[in-house]
Amino acid sequence: MARSQPPIHAVVLAGGAGERFWPASRQKHPKPFLRVVDGRSLLEATLDRARRFAGENLWIVCGEEHAAALRRHAGLAPGRVLIEPMRRNTAMAVGLAAERIAADDPDAAMAVLPADHRIPDARAFAAAIRKAARASRDAGVLVTLGVKPTRPDTGLGYIQRGAPVGGAHPGLHRARRFVEKPDAARAKRYLREGSYLWNAGIFVWTARTILGELETCAPAIHRALGPVRRALGGRGRRLAAEVLTRAYRNAPSEPIDIAVMERSRKVWTLPVAFRWSDVGTWQSLAEELGVAPGDTRVVEGDLAFDDAGGNLVWANGRTVALLGVEGLAVVDTGDALLVARLDRSADVRQVVASLKRSGRADVT
Amino acid sequence: MARSQPPIHAVVLAGGAGERFWPASRQKHPKPFLRVVDGRSLLEATLDRARRFAGENLWIVCGEEHAAALRRHAGLAPGRVLIEPMRRNTAMAVGLAAERIAADDPDAAMAVLPADHRIPDARAFAAAIRKAARASRDAGVLVTLGVKPTRPDTGLGYIQRGAPVGGAHPGLHRARRFVEKPDAARAKRYLREGSYLWNAGIFVWTARTILGELETCAPAIHRALGPVRRALGGRGRRLAAEVLTRAYRNAPSEPIDIAVMERSRKVWTLPVAFRWSDVGTWQSLAEELGVAPGDTRVVEGDLAFDDAGGNLVWANGRTVALLGVEGLAVVDTGDALLVARLDRSADVRQVVASLKRSGRADVT
Repeated sequence: MARSQPPIHAVVLAGGAGERFWPASRQKHPKPFLRVVDGRSLLEATLDRARRFAGENLWIVCGEEHAAALRRHAGLAPGRVLIEPMRRNTAMAVGLAAERIAADDPDAAMAVLPADHRIPDARAFAAAIRKAARASRDAGVLVTLGVKPTRPDTGLGYIQRGAPVGGAHPGLHRARRFVEKPDAARAKRYLREGSYLWNAGIFVWTARTILGELETCAPAIHRALGPVRRALGGRGRRLAAEVLTRAYRNAPSEPIDIAVMERSRKVWTLPVAFRWSDVGTWQSLAEELGVAPGDTRVVEGDLAFDDAGGNLVWANGRTVALLGVEGLAVVDTGDALLVARLDRSADVRQVVASLKRSGRADVT
Repeated sequence: MARSQPPIHAVVLAGGAGERFWPASRQKHPKPFLRVVDGRSLLEATLDRARRFAGENLWIVCGEEHAAALRRHAGLAPGRVLIEPMRRNTAMAVGLAAERIAADDPDAAMAVLPADHRIPDARAFAAAIRKAARASRDAGVLVTLGVKPTRPDTGLGYIQRGAPVGGAHPGLHRARRFVEKPDAARAKRYLREGSYLWNAGIFVWTARTILGELETCAPAIHRALGPVRRALGGRGRRLAAEVLTRAYRNAPSEPIDIAVMERSRKVWTLPVAFRWSDVGTWQSLAEELGVAPGDTRVVEGDLAFDDAGGNLVWANGRTVALLGVEGLAVVDTGDALLVARLDRSADVRQVVASLKRSGRADVT
């Protein structure tokens, strides 16, 4: 079935550093590079998943500092890596990729994928992307994947689904509204209520549709992309650094969720029930790996002793002994060591901020 | 004053591995080598303290496996290191040193010092040893230093002091009895009661007196030392390995406390009030360094973040961040990492035992 359809491009956003994964993630070794499960990095796993529906129509959008490493790591041709000259959040990243893809084929569908999520069931994921791509082509809509929640998570945004679309697109719903991270009470209500889905930041649309919606909902961003559009209008497909700098210098810095998804009237959502994690913190990785009271998980390292359990260990080949401690993340990278309560994982950002303030570029 | 007195020999016992200091202490890098305070190793600090009253009359008794390293570390001549061919606990170690010293001068006083204790006030310590040495020479007694307790410690043995000796030896008391490690209730009573002192394992006597008491109280040990005595009776002062093996092979394995101190009728004690610690566990080191709730101490390493406090960090130059954790020992040696609740420090032995069982000689 996939072969009879027009191609889907996979656009992998690899802009974030994943600071909450310090000390394993660094400025120079960001989260997509981390081998947290299965021995593959999150980026490799993301690309492998994408190949199921995109073949080699793969793109990475990232900053200059990681471009070379990401390209080597991903094994992609130079032209496949779109280098942002400065950080302008995801709306510009998506717009840049859309312009590049539109230059070859404006009606190509593109799936926007964060580089650092984990989705074990690659087959179910590919099927969902294909279904979303069909809908986006047929109806000229923006489709966002909505993951059925399994817990009252207060660290994620939600999408409330509206009426089913029906007709040729069973399973798809209109998106009623996007909701920011809720408090605990609301998160519980969302879980009970059933119409709320996790916003996984995974979007499917054609290049033409997203560029049109950028023009409608975020005209300043569409305008900022002008130099890129004009450069690609010629014969060349390589974007000169000056062109990108001109485009980005004055571009607004907005996430695509706010710039487009919350404003557009053309948003559908495809509820999916496969396991998904944004692997945002040591705690979410711990959950992903099955850490539970009394049950420790080791990503790397040799856990020689652990009498209390419920810990997450990442120790770079070291022999580790845990005596009487539980609910901890123990992360030892050779030059830096973090010992953190898993339920304080979100505050790892404070650690990184503090290191940066004191000029410790060597370990951030 | 010191110069007008006959010499005091310092006999440093360096037989133990200090397993509870894993992973900093190892079979091949035992506790006396550890630089826990002041940048000096415990052994170097012990020898420096000893030089105040012993000059270069320094002896080390240790096992074969550490002899070369200890000698280099201590900067002593080969003949100053008495190598035990097998472990037979402290009574044999003391007996061996006494025989060696007696061969040159049976009336020389000797101070027996564990290699791995910490006593910040070296001057007060030297004064106490000199005072004890005078008493031991004058009265032909065994003098044990008794440290005035500052807390109800259940991890130490106690000495109950008896009547003051008076006369030429103010401050010295007869030792009434030795008590094994008490339970918490008794330890509290001992602290209140005032006549109980910590048995620091620091003894002062002349070679002649201790050999006599070994003969009286522990004749099997005295007999075992026969080959040593006969060999030293000749002109040579170097003990051949065969002689030592003959002596040790069938020697009883007893601590000097049990073999002699608890049985002898010639025991005096000198109560001392200086700070003393046997630095037995990470917790006792933590106390020694002033770790307190909210207050972390770093032996080595760069503690970049610590929002809860009350931890002990030893991280071999690493950058360490502690997030939400307190009351922990965090010890990272490069090849091994221990994260332990300080109040479980005594159980570090379990960790080492478990590593040994699983054949992990590389990290024990």
